[in-house]
Amino acid sequence: MRKGRSLELKPIGIIHSPYKNRADAPYRGHRSRRISLIEVFEQFEEGLQDIEGFSHIIVIYWFHKSRGYRLLVRTPWDDVPHGLFSTRSPHRPSSLGLTVVELVVRKKNILKVKGLDAIDGTPLLDIKPYIPEVDQRSIVKPGWLEGKLGKERC
Amino acid sequence: MRKGRSLELKPIGIIHSPYKNRADAPYRGHRSRRISLIEVFEQFEEGLQDIEGFSHIIVIYWFHKSRGYRLLVRTPWDDVPHGLFSTRSPHRPSSLGLTVVELVVRKKNILKVKGLDAIDGTPLLDIKPYIPEVDQRSIVKPGWLEGKLGKERC
Repeated sequence: MRKGRSLELKPIGIIHSPYKNRADAPYRGHRSRRISLIEVFEQFEEGLQDIEGFSHIIVIYWFHKSRGYRLLVRTPWDDVPHGLFSTRSPHRPSSLGLTVVELVVRKKNILKVKGLDAIDGTPLLDIKPYIPEVDQRSIVKPGWLEGKLGKERC
Repeated sequence: MRKGRSLELKPIGIIHSPYKNRADAPYRGHRSRRISLIEVFEQFEEGLQDIEGFSHIIVIYWFHKSRGYRLLVRTPWDDVPHGLFSTRSPHRPSSLGLTVVELVVRKKNILKVKGLDAIDGTPLLDIKPYIPEVDQRSIVKPGWLEGKLGKERC
């Protein structure tokens, strides 16, 4: 692979969310019970077959409101800056966001989900089934975030 | 967002792996104890600050050997095909792969990890800290995969 090469992505859908702009999106949206609708473009609907058997899915999307990034970032959880890749900041070299959400129901090409913190109009890039054996780990150290979640400053 | 619009990604690094081609990569690489090295390009090294405090990270990469996709796919775990988005097949409209891996050690811009199933030379797109409160769910239904993992056919 050449180092400077660009890769091209095409969205497979769009996210309809109660969060209309960046200021609306909660810091810990995964805990919210608010509903978002994931619209998968009709040409991909067949690929959703059997997704309704999974209680949770991994949603990958494009931080379309993000402009630029810094390698050291301040967060609402700490006074000192941390390296970008040890945070979930939306401002990243690859503007990829990812959230594990609860799948409430599927109707054709529309997935109704809980716990998605993306803002309205976010381009959808991929959906993967959440598989505990693959995606969960037992003994986990949460680094600088230990004890800090839930104590964010505004 | 216009429906057909393309989004552009630039890799932030490259994955050096013991799996030299697709046939080498194990179906359940997340259980492997084999070591991969994630080389983050030097210009992004500062963004890794504090990552070493996390025992696990989420690695997002580009399935660079993938060519095309089908919306219904056969897997090693079942006789019947399933919708692409209810599988982790590497052949997807957006060629995005994601694996939760154990971070063994960081040396400057190189991360030594266990459990990464990407093949050698895979372009690295993003690294996010794995945060149990955000990324783990308690009551999870694994859909059509229930009871099937570990029983794959060759």
